[in-house]
Amino acid sequence: MKHKVTFLPDNLTIEMEHGGSLFKAAKAAGVYVLSSCGGKGNCGKCKLVVKQGTVDPGQSKSYLSAEEQERGYVLACHSHVQSELTVEIPAESRMQAKHKIATGAKTEELLKFMQEAGGCLESRISRIYLDLAPPTLDDNISDLERVRRALDQAGFDVENLHINFMVLRKLSHVLREAAWKVTLALFHTGTVTEVLDIFPHNVVKKRFGVAVDIGTTTVVVYLVDLANGHIIGSASSYNAQVKCGDDVITRIVYATEKNGLQELQDLVINNISSLLTEIATKHGIRPGMIDYMVVAGNTTMNHLFYGINPQFIREEPYIPTAAFFPLIRGKSIGFTIDPQALIYSMPNVASYVGGDITSGVLVSQIHKKEEVSLFIDIGTNGEIVLGNKDWMVTAACSAGPAFEGSGIKFGMRAMEGAIEEVEINPQTHEVNYRVIGDAKPIGICGSGMIDALAEMYLTGVIDQKGKIREEIGSNRVRKGENGLEFVLAWRVESAINKEIVITEVDLDNLIRAKAAIYAGFATLVGHMGMTFGDIAKIYIAGGFGRYIDVERAITIGMLPDLAVEKFQFLGNTSIVGAYYSLLCDRLRHEAEEIAKKMTYVELSVSRSFMDEYMSALFLPHTDLHAFPTVQKEMEKRKK
Amino acid sequence: MKHKVTFLPDNLTIEMEHGGSLFKAAKAAGVYVLSSCGGKGNCGKCKLVVKQGTVDPGQSKSYLSAEEQERGYVLACHSHVQSELTVEIPAESRMQAKHKIATGAKTEELLKFMQEAGGCLESRISRIYLDLAPPTLDDNISDLERVRRALDQAGFDVENLHINFMVLRKLSHVLREAAWKVTLALFHTGTVTEVLDIFPHNVVKKRFGVAVDIGTTTVVVYLVDLANGHIIGSASSYNAQVKCGDDVITRIVYATEKNGLQELQDLVINNISSLLTEIATKHGIRPGMIDYMVVAGNTTMNHLFYGINPQFIREEPYIPTAAFFPLIRGKSIGFTIDPQALIYSMPNVASYVGGDITSGVLVSQIHKKEEVSLFIDIGTNGEIVLGNKDWMVTAACSAGPAFEGSGIKFGMRAMEGAIEEVEINPQTHEVNYRVIGDAKPIGICGSGMIDALAEMYLTGVIDQKGKIREEIGSNRVRKGENGLEFVLAWRVESAINKEIVITEVDLDNLIRAKAAIYAGFATLVGHMGMTFGDIAKIYIAGGFGRYIDVERAITIGMLPDLAVEKFQFLGNTSIVGAYYSLLCDRLRHEAEEIAKKMTYVELSVSRSFMDEYMSALFLPHTDLHAFPTVQKEMEKRKK
Repeated sequence: MKHKVTFLPDNLTIEMEHGGSLFKAAKAAGVYVLSSCGGKGNCGKCKLVVKQGTVDPGQSKSYLSAEEQERGYVLACHSHVQSELTVEIPAESRMQAKHKIATGAKTEELLKFMQEAGGCLESRISRIYLDLAPPTLDDNISDLERVRRALDQAGFDVENLHINFMVLRKLSHVLREAAWKVTLALFHTGTVTEVLDIFPHNVVKKRFGVAVDIGTTTVVVYLVDLANGHIIGSASSYNAQVKCGDDVITRIVYATEKNGLQELQDLVINNISSLLTEIATKHGIRPGMIDYMVVAGNTTMNHLFYGINPQFIREEPYIPTAAFFPLIRGKSIGFTIDPQALIYSMPNVASYVGGDITSGVLVSQIHKKEEVSLFIDIGTNGEIVLGNKDWMVTAACSAGPAFEGSGIKFGMRAMEGAIEEVEINPQTHEVNYRVIGDAKPIGICGSGMIDALAEMYLTGVIDQKGKIREEIGSNRVRKGENGLEFVLAWRVESAINKEIVITEVDLDNLIRAKAAIYAGFATLVGHMGMTFGDIAKIYIAGGFGRYIDVERAITIGMLPDLAVEKFQFLGNTSIVGAYYSLLCDRLRHEAEEIAKKMTYVELSVSRSFMDEYMSALFLPHTDLHAFPTVQKEMEKRKK
Repeated sequence: MKHKVTFLPDNLTIEMEHGGSLFKAAKAAGVYVLSSCGGKGNCGKCKLVVKQGTVDPGQSKSYLSAEEQERGYVLACHSHVQSELTVEIPAESRMQAKHKIATGAKTEELLKFMQEAGGCLESRISRIYLDLAPPTLDDNISDLERVRRALDQAGFDVENLHINFMVLRKLSHVLREAAWKVTLALFHTGTVTEVLDIFPHNVVKKRFGVAVDIGTTTVVVYLVDLANGHIIGSASSYNAQVKCGDDVITRIVYATEKNGLQELQDLVINNISSLLTEIATKHGIRPGMIDYMVVAGNTTMNHLFYGINPQFIREEPYIPTAAFFPLIRGKSIGFTIDPQALIYSMPNVASYVGGDITSGVLVSQIHKKEEVSLFIDIGTNGEIVLGNKDWMVTAACSAGPAFEGSGIKFGMRAMEGAIEEVEINPQTHEVNYRVIGDAKPIGICGSGMIDALAEMYLTGVIDQKGKIREEIGSNRVRKGENGLEFVLAWRVESAINKEIVITEVDLDNLIRAKAAIYAGFATLVGHMGMTFGDIAKIYIAGGFGRYIDVERAITIGMLPDLAVEKFQFLGNTSIVGAYYSLLCDRLRHEAEEIAKKMTYVELSVSRSFMDEYMSALFLPHTDLHAFPTVQKEMEKRKK
C-alpha cells in the first residue's frame, strides 16, 4: 500500500509505501532536510512537523523536547509513514539551496597573485587550428594520417602522437562536416602529445577550463577562459552529499554500505555538472568547449569523486588508495557534460591532508619562504601545515564539524538566520547578537559560537572548564532537558518560536573541537622542536576561517596567542590553487612538489597530541601563561 | 496483430506482426538464412519453403523458377507474414554454424616459422609479481605509492608509470584481499609503463593472448599462452555479419543505415567473444587472464570492429578514417569478456588493402627478399602485393565474392554438400564431381567453379567468351529461365531435389571475377615496368586460396601462366601474422614498417587496369600467347 506524502512549505508530493521512512520520502521528493548523520538516527537534526496524518515516530522522542513533541515534531529518520501525510519542514531543518559563499572570483586580483607566485598562462592543454587539403585519388592517405601530417608540418613530434579513441570515432565525420577546417584540443606531457578532441572550424579561442573546490560542506566551481585566464563565472552550493552525512567519516561509512559509493559519486558529479551548466548557460558557452578541469578536495572527497572506495582511509593505519590520481577523462566518472575533458586532481598528501591543502600551500607560497609559517585550513576538518622553503610538516586534527553546527543544539552553517556575532554584558549578562541577513535568528553559526564561548568565558557565565555558573543569577541560565543552558535569544526574538540556547553539551563539544585544533598546532610545532614564537606568520584559509574573529579565537584558546598582525586570511585557497594549476602547468607541477615535500604526522596515534589535547580542554588552556593577552584581559575584567 | 512463425527444421518459433518481413522474422528467431545482399532483395538467395499458412510473396517470383514457385518457395526478404506460419529453410539456404575452416593451429610449426622470421617471445605485455609489505602507521603511503615503490625497486622507470583508472578503482580491494601479494599486468612502450590490470596472488604465468582474423566471411580465433607461445585452442565460424551482406560494400551500405554500424560492431564483437569463451571454457581459462589481443582484418572489417563509420571507404577518393588504429582497451568497444585487455590491430595500408594483407606479407617475408615476389590473398576480396626488400606495391581487385558463391545460382561456400572438384568427359560431356563431406551435392564452391569453368572450356562446352555451345548436342545443355545452362548434377543425384546447373549468367560473373584478379596482377606488374617472367615466386594466401588447383586457375586465366613450382600456398596468413605480432613485439613493429612501406595503387580509376580487365574477359585471355601452356593443352586436345 502506498501513501501520498506532501512536504510543506515547498508543497512537493511523493508516493511512499506504508511503513517507509520519512527521511527517505524527503530524499525521494528532493526536499532537503538538515541532517548531520545522513539518516543514521543519531544526530537529532532532521526535525519535521506532522500537520496531517499519522506517522510512527519510532525513537524520535529521545531527541525532542517535550514542547517539540507537543507541537507535532518528529525526526524524519526515525519516523515511518502510516497514512497520507502532510508534513512541514520547519525553518531550523531547512537547508537553503543557495547560500552565501564568497566565491571571490575576481580575475584581475587572482591573475596578479598568480603572477606573483611565478605563474603564467601555459596550460598542458592547447588548441591548434588545421586547414587541411581535402583528399584526392593521388593524396589518399587516411583521415588520421592527414591530421598527423599537418601536425608534423606544424612542428609536433608525431612519433609520439596519441589519438583518443572517441576522437577517432568522429574524426571522418567532423573533417567532412567542417570542409577539412578543424580545431584540435591537444594535451602535452613530456614525451607524448595526445589529441583530446576535435571541433569543426576555428574554435582555437573558445577553450575553457574549470576549477572546482569539493569541500565536505560546499562545492565551488569557476568556469575559466583558458585563453586569457578570465573567470567567466563562478557558482557554489552545498555539497549535495551533505544529506548523506556531515563529515568525512560519516560519508566513508555511507560509501561502504549498499550502493552508497555510487550514490555519493553521482551526487557530487551531478552537483558540479549543474553548477557548471548554470554558469555555462548564463554565458552562452557550450559544455563541449571545456578541455580541462582541475579539482581540489580532501582525500575522501577525491575518492568519492573518482568512485573509489574510501574505506581504508578510516581504518588504521589510514591508507588512501592514491594520493596522486591519474589524469582521466570526464566520461570515466560519468561527466556527460563534457566526456572528453581531462580531469586532474590536486595531489593529496595523506588520508586526512588532501589536495585542498596542497592547493592552499601553493597559494600561500609558504613553501618558498625563508621564514617559518603556519598554514591552517579550518573547514569541516582542520588541517595544518608548518614549514618553509626547506621543510614542511602537516597534520589533520579531527576537530569534527562542531563549528559548522554539527552536535550543537542550535548549530547551523553561516547562512541567513544564523547568529554570527555575540556580545554579553559583563554586569547584566544580557545578550546582543547580530544575525546574518539581519533576520530573526534560527540558530548560531561557527563565528557566533566562538563569540559566544569567548564572551561567556570573559563575562563569567561559564568557568574555565566550560561549565555554566548558575550562581551568576541570570534568568538566561536555566535547567534544560540535558542540563544547564544559556539563552542567547528569547522565543519572541527567534524565527522558530523557540528559545535559542547554548547547552553545556554544546559547550563541551565546542571546547573539544577547539582543543583538537590547538593541540594540532602545538604538536606540530613541538614535533619540530619549535615554539609558537618561532612562527613568523599564520595563514588562515577555508570558508569558515574568513569569518573568524582572531582575538575571540585566541580568547577561547583555539588559535595560539600571537600578535594579531601575524594572522592573515586567505579565503578559499582550495579553489584558487585549482585555478592556478588549471592555467599554469608550472604551478601545477609545483603543487606536486609541495605534496611530495610535506611530511604527514598522524595525530590520532600521537602521544604528545593526546597530552596537548587534554591540556587544551580548558578555556583558554590549562597553562594560562601560554595565553598572556587572555590572562591580561581576564585580570583587567576582574578589576 | 501478431502471428506465430515457426522455422523448420530447427523448430524455432517467434511472434511477428502482421505484414512483417519474413527475413526479419528469421533474424529475430536467430535462424540463419543464406543471403548475399543482407536482405536488400536483390541476391535471390534467401529461399524458404512455406509449409503452412499464408505469406505475401511480393517480388519473390522474379527470383524463382516456375518449379520452385510450385513447390512453395518464396524469398524471405520479399515476403510478408499474413497468418500463422510454418516455413522450412531448405538445405541450399542453410548456413551451418560450424564449418570446415582449417585453423591450422599447429604450435610447433608456427613457432618455428616465427623464429625463422626473426621472432621471439617478447611481447609488449608482461607481468610482475609483487610481495608487498603491508602498511603500518610508520609506513603509511597510499596503496598506489606502495605499488609504485615496489616497481621502482624492481627497476622500472616509475617516473613514467601510468595506472589505468579501472585498476585504481579496485586496487585497495585486491591488495587487501590477496594479503598484499599481487600480480600486475604491465604494458611497455618506449617511454611509458602502464599498469593494465592487477590480480590477486601470483598469476605471472597465467597470462594469455588472443590472435583474431576477422575475415569478411569467416572469423578465426587463437587463444595463446603468452608465456610459451602455445596455442591453447582455436575456433572459427562464419563472420556473424554475413547475414547483413556478403561483401564489404554491402556491409558499408548496411553500416550507414539506421543502427547498422552498431549492429555490425555488436555482431563481430559477440562473434569473437563467443568463440573465445568456447576455447577458454574448454581449457578452464578465466577470461580475466587475457592481457592482449591482436586483430587482423581488412580495412572495412577494422572500421566495423571499432565501431567507426566506414562510409568514406566506399566513396571516391576512398579514404579510411585510419590505417593505423590506436591501442584501446576491450571495454571501449564492448568486450565484456576482458574489459582491461589491450587490443591492437594489424596496420592497414589503404581502404582496400588491410591489416590481413600486412599480416600476410609479414608471414610471407617477401619484404626481406632480394627476389621479386607476388603475394596474393584470394578471399572475399582479392588483394595483391608485388615487391621485395626494397619496394612494395599493392592493389585490390574488386573481384567480388563470386568464387564464394555470391551471384552464382548454385554458388555456396566450401562446406559440406559443395561440389569442389569437377571433371568433364571431352567426348560425352558427362560429369564427374567430388562433394565436400562425400555428401549429395547442394551447390558448388569456389574450387568447383574454377574446375567447372576450366573443364567446360577445355572440353568445348563453352567458348572463349564463356558462352555455352549448344551445338555440342549434350542433354546437359539446355535452356533455363535465364538463358542456356549446363547441368552438373541431375535432380536425383542432388540433396535438394533440383538439378544443379551452371548458367550463362554464372559463367559471365565468374569470368568477370577472374578477369579482375588477373588484371590486378598484370596492372601491378606493368606499373613497375616488369613482366610476369620477373617474378620469382607467387605466394597464395586466404582460406579460398588453399583449395585452388593452380593448373586449373591458370587454364581459366585467373593466375598467370607460370611454372607450377613457383606457386606456394601459405594458408590463412592473416591469423598467423596476428599470432606473430601478439607474441613478438619486434615482428609487430616489422608489420608497421611493412604497412608504411607499401605503395597503394588504386585500380578502380586506373586506365591500364580497365584495359587489362577487358583483355582478360576471355578464356584464358584475349592474348593466348600469354598462356602458352593453355594454348598447348588446347592444341593437344584438338588433335
